[in-house]
Parts: sequence; structure tokens; C-alpha cells
Amino acid sequence: MEMKSFLIIGMGSFGHHLCRSLAENECEIMVVDKDSEAVEDVLPLGVSGRVGDCTNIDVLRSFSIDLFDACFVCMGTNFKNSLQIASFLKELGAKKVYAKADEDIQAKFLKRNGADVVIYPEKNVAEQIAIAASSDNIFDCIPFVEDYYIAEIRPMERWLGRTVVDVNFRARYNLNIVAVKQGENVIPIPGPNYVFNEDEHIMVLGHINDIRRVAY
Amino acid sequence: MEMKSFLIIGMGSFGHHLCRSLAENECEIMVVDKDSEAVEDVLPLGVSGRVGDCTNIDVLRSFSIDLFDACFVCMGTNFKNSLQIASFLKELGAKKVYAKADEDIQAKFLKRNGADVVIYPEKNVAEQIAIAASSDNIFDCIPFVEDYYIAEIRPMERWLGRTVVDVNFRARYNLNIVAVKQGENVIPIPGPNYVFNEDEHIMVLGHINDIRRVAY
Repeated sequence: MEMKSFLIIGMGSFGHHLCRSLAENECEIMVVDKDSEAVEDVLPLGVSGRVGDCTNIDVLRSFSIDLFDACFVCMGTNFKNSLQIASFLKELGAKKVYAKADEDIQAKFLKRNGADVVIYPEKNVAEQIAIAASSDNIFDCIPFVEDYYIAEIRPMERWLGRTVVDVNFRARYNLNIVAVKQGENVIPIPGPNYVFNEDEHIMVLGHINDIRRVAY
Repeated sequence: MEMKSFLIIGMGSFGHHLCRSLAENECEIMVVDKDSEAVEDVLPLGVSGRVGDCTNIDVLRSFSIDLFDACFVCMGTNFKNSLQIASFLKELGAKKVYAKADEDIQAKFLKRNGADVVIYPEKNVAEQIAIAASSDNIFDCIPFVEDYYIAEIRPMERWLGRTVVDVNFRARYNLNIVAVKQGENVIPIPGPNYVFNEDEHIMVLGHINDIRRVAY
């Protein structure tokens, strides 16, 4: 497969982690930031870097924007700049523009002005933690698709020693068991004859309302 | 179940989203920030708020820290303050301290100085996006547990029209099919007789190396 190439604008904490992860996935990366130190920091990862202010369209024009597989707008603090850069990138023929947002209103305007995908790390992670923290019985909660989550829960007392079939788990609770967690060990898709065990956690996939019903 | 109670320190973007999500999960919430506007912003969510500088231990002492189910240290920008507050909270008997980090080195020091759980939104989300962006065939990638992900992939051409059993999917690829995605529709745990279909995506659970083998 051909190596993918990406432009990352803004080397704050998010841009930095993204750059590192893309480098680990063997992509070709160009980074830009106004601050030369922020650019120098990531050069050891084997990426190319340039110092420049991307709110100036001529700086963006000097890259061949249309040749990147995707461009990432990662500056966190100045929303006007993010919006302007996302919009310039689209004008310059970017194939795909990702932009980071902190609030719903930012997400909305970024989508209207050139962003194909809005990245929303703080909201996503906050929701996940809030669900887990608000119940003694949810140990982790992974967003799956809209309103569907995978939650790590303790089996109910009345299930112990019985199989998934005996409990009539799927029909009764409208949930599916995706995995069983024995300490750090994960056994995926345990099957209908799995016997619920006090020492194990189960990872269930389902609507958040159905998860709450078994986890509270 | 008894209502859970939480203290959130720092009403930046992450603190704000956390406060909103915990409120939706029917928890009792107290927020603190140095900035009165940031506190006023979230009062309509039905939470209590105080203006104060939590790097002053007397401010923290004025709350009964040991009565909260957990305390969240959410300030993003000043690491020294986060560290100091996490450490004070533990000294004051906090049951559980969550603290937000931007870098590995911060995570390490927070854990050594009072944080029970380190929250790392930008790193988590960056990794997830990097894996999906670096392959044409991965549409989403959800971190499951250490090095295990759930990836949304297109079925390989050679699987089409055949069942999971025929393909010998689990043994051959060391992956499990957690769900089938038909547009926005999700069918969980499709079972051994599911027939791979060109128009559908499958969500597979497995080690990132095994996922890469089928997704590239």
C-alpha cells in the first residue's frame, strides 16, 4: 500500500500526539507551527517541519495542499484561526480536512466552513468518564456508536453460576456480551454456554439506557 | 441508588463537558474555578459553584473533601497547579482523585502525587484518529484495552457471499466480529452464519497487529 501523507497544523498537545501516532502508523507527515520550538520537538519522529503562520493563505499555498491525503487543524485556543485555516484548506483543494473543536458551536461552524471531520477529544472523553464515574458498577465505558456503548460491568448476583442461555441474557436485557475480563485478560465473544462468575467483569454492548438498567 | 457527589476543579473545556455529562447522569456536583464567569456558565445545569483558587489548601479545606465520591482536577495549562491540587486533595482524604494530563511525563508525576486515575483525552483520541486515518479501509477505531481495538472495516473481497464459518474467520485472522454496520444501523454479534456483504462494514475486535493484517 502507498504511504499516506498528512499535513498537521498546530503542534500543541493534540497535534503532538497525533503526529506521534501517525508516525507510528508509518505515514509521511509535514507539520507547521508559528513556534519553531514546537516544530523542532517532533522532528526526531522522522517528520518534516516548517515554521509559519497558516492564517496567511500564502503560507498554505506554498504546500501543495491537494496532494496530502488529509490536513489536520489542531490549534486549540484561537477558534477564529482554526475556522480561517479550515476554510483556506478547502479552497486550496484539500482532499479531507479534520479540525479540532472544544464546543458544539465551534463544531457547527467548522463543519460549515471546510471541515469534513470535527475532532472533539475533550467532549468524548468527558462523556465516557462521566458514565463510568456515576455508577459503582461500571468500570469502563467505551462509546461505540451514537448512544450505544460497551460497558465493563460486574455480573449481577442472580446470574452467578448460570449460563448466558439460562439467564436469557440477550432477550431479557437487550444487551450482548462482547468479552469477559479476567483481571487483565480479555476473552472475546464468550458464547451462550459461558457461566457468569463472581470474579470476572463482562463487557456488554448496548444502548446506554439498557446498560444503566443492569449497572445500577 | 444513592446520588453520587463530585467536585470538579477547573472549568475549562474539559471540566465543562465533564460537568455537563455528570449532570446528565444525575450526580450531585460542586464546581470551583478562579474565574467567576466560568463558574456561572455551568450553574444552569443545576450544579453548585464556588469561585476560588484551589492551589490555596484552605480553599480546598473549606469543602469537606472526604465526603465527595471523587474529585476531578481538570485545569489544562498549568501543570504545577494540577500537581499541587491533586496532592492536597489526597492529603485532605479524597476518596478518588482524577487528574487530566497532556503528556506522559505529567501522567507519571500526577500518579506519584495523589492522582488515582489520569485522564488523557488528547492522546487517546489522537491514537484513535491516527489508526483510522492511516488506512483507507478502517473507518473507525475504538480503543478497547491496551493494544486491542474495535475497528470498523470493509470486508475483504474474498469473504463476500461466504459465511463467518466458511471463512474460518476467528481461527484464520485471530479476530472476532462484534457487530455488523448497515449504514447507521448496528447489528451486534452476528453469529457464525452471517454472510459477508459488500455494502456492509464489520466491527472487529482484536490486537492492532491482527487488525492491520486485514485492513491494509
